[in-house]
Amino acid sequence: MEFDLIAFIKSKTKYDKSVILGINDDAAVLSLRPIKQLVVSTDTLVDGVHFDNKISPQQLGHKSLAVNLSDLAAMGATPKWFTLNLTLPKIEMSWIEGFINGLLRLAHNHKVNLVGGDTTQGPLSITITAFGEVETDQLLTRYSAQTKDLIAVTGQLGSAAFALDHTETELTKALFTPEPQLEISQQIRKFATSCIDISDGLLADLGHICHQSQKGAKISLEQIPVNSLVKESPRWSNYVLSGGDDYQLCFTFKPSDLSKLPDNCTIIGQICCSGGVRVYSENEEIKISQKGYVHFSNNG
Amino acid sequence: MEFDLIAFIKSKTKYDKSVILGINDDAAVLSLRPIKQLVVSTDTLVDGVHFDNKISPQQLGHKSLAVNLSDLAAMGATPKWFTLNLTLPKIEMSWIEGFINGLLRLAHNHKVNLVGGDTTQGPLSITITAFGEVETDQLLTRYSAQTKDLIAVTGQLGSAAFALDHTETELTKALFTPEPQLEISQQIRKFATSCIDISDGLLADLGHICHQSQKGAKISLEQIPVNSLVKESPRWSNYVLSGGDDYQLCFTFKPSDLSKLPDNCTIIGQICCSGGVRVYSENEEIKISQKGYVHFSNNG
Repeated sequence: MEFDLIAFIKSKTKYDKSVILGINDDAAVLSLRPIKQLVVSTDTLVDGVHFDNKISPQQLGHKSLAVNLSDLAAMGATPKWFTLNLTLPKIEMSWIEGFINGLLRLAHNHKVNLVGGDTTQGPLSITITAFGEVETDQLLTRYSAQTKDLIAVTGQLGSAAFALDHTETELTKALFTPEPQLEISQQIRKFATSCIDISDGLLADLGHICHQSQKGAKISLEQIPVNSLVKESPRWSNYVLSGGDDYQLCFTFKPSDLSKLPDNCTIIGQICCSGGVRVYSENEEIKISQKGYVHFSNNG
Repeated sequence: MEFDLIAFIKSKTKYDKSVILGINDDAAVLSLRPIKQLVVSTDTLVDGVHFDNKISPQQLGHKSLAVNLSDLAAMGATPKWFTLNLTLPKIEMSWIEGFINGLLRLAHNHKVNLVGGDTTQGPLSITITAFGEVETDQLLTRYSAQTKDLIAVTGQLGSAAFALDHTETELTKALFTPEPQLEISQQIRKFATSCIDISDGLLADLGHICHQSQKGAKISLEQIPVNSLVKESPRWSNYVLSGGDDYQLCFTFKPSDLSKLPDNCTIIGQICCSGGVRVYSENEEIKISQKGYVHFSNNG
């Protein structure tokens, strides 16, 4: 493609000394501090699959980076750099500038530098690969939750899924410009025993922790933090349990670390020996179908 | 996408101890040896733009990784890991298995591990991000060629561009399964003063070295190594000077290091103070149009 977007963005970027060689060579060269581990996350967003024309270019730029920074937050990593592979059907400068503005504002907020990429012509698609650093003993994984650990989540759940069905509400912000939970990640990485970001829905993602830790989980539906607008919907429990795209964190920690729990985190349950993820409402277990839909026992 | 290609490939991969956490978490965790720098290259190949249905799935798997390993070779880096973002219109196992076989065969040959990625549904497109290590004092860049340095290239040039016009010849191998010049890279990184891989054609890529080193270059058309089949074409000089996709290396080095030049490398010219890239044939300068087409002086 004749337009070199990556060089264009470079002109808006200031590098710190960790970037030895940025754009304008065959590859980027990066310097990692000796005791840290490198954490790499990558996601592709495809037009018509992951987003449609309801999202603005600014919001799309934000979201493309946010979903990767959210993965780094789930690992306890501090983001440092990212690469951008952008496939565009045509060069439309107003679209590109909007996209870049959304992207770079979020990058700037989290002090993460664009270090390379590729611009190609074709159906609209965005791949971002984000790099972070973490001390080995602060790495958060999915596989080390222990029986009796408490389960907590950040923020509110279900807002993004609700916004997908209700596009005219204030909650579209949750869907289009999710905030990666990096600040809380850096607080909890000192004591959390496992962590994941909620991209596929609470049941699915907590299920990953249970599966990989070889444990089960019991959670209380009423304890799950939810926006009052979502709570009014007859489908609210489906939104909070199975709605994707929230990009909040779900993590576990020892009860003895309860005093370390940051504000904006809510305890929703506890890890148990086995049995997958079970959801209780008013002390009765509720049935969840394979697809994650909720069937209350009395309607069962 | 329901089919998890990345997990599928994982089952075929053995990790070395540099991979602390591979697939099955929010991100990969990698361990870099303290004195080395991290080198990152990323490229996207889009169906209908960078390839068409003449390339087999095996060849496409090979080429997708090869173009990134070639960028690492151009930096003097030893490849270690890569991520794969694959966008597929549908799940067709025979295609996927062919693609993976081509990809993993090349990965295995160069001891490079797949550590993460993303599989999405949409128009066929492949993004690979490759990671390598290099000692700071062996890093090859585009910006440090010096006046009087000799210019050399690996292999033969023009074969891939010739094959694009002549699909029934043995040279389609050069187009569809280029070999990244990693072995030679690791020999020349001890003494080369600059290096680039030839993806856009010799004139364009040597032009990048000249531009970024603020120098000029004089090369001899007859010295450029070329396959005898290509040489028979009336357009052979266009193929060797402007044909892309060869993925050979073009590099510079001090005349005093001549004895270190590996086999399979050919000296084609010398760096001079300024004047861009000038091409000589039988001691006369030949004219090159802006688009890289060659006009011989006697026809000029």
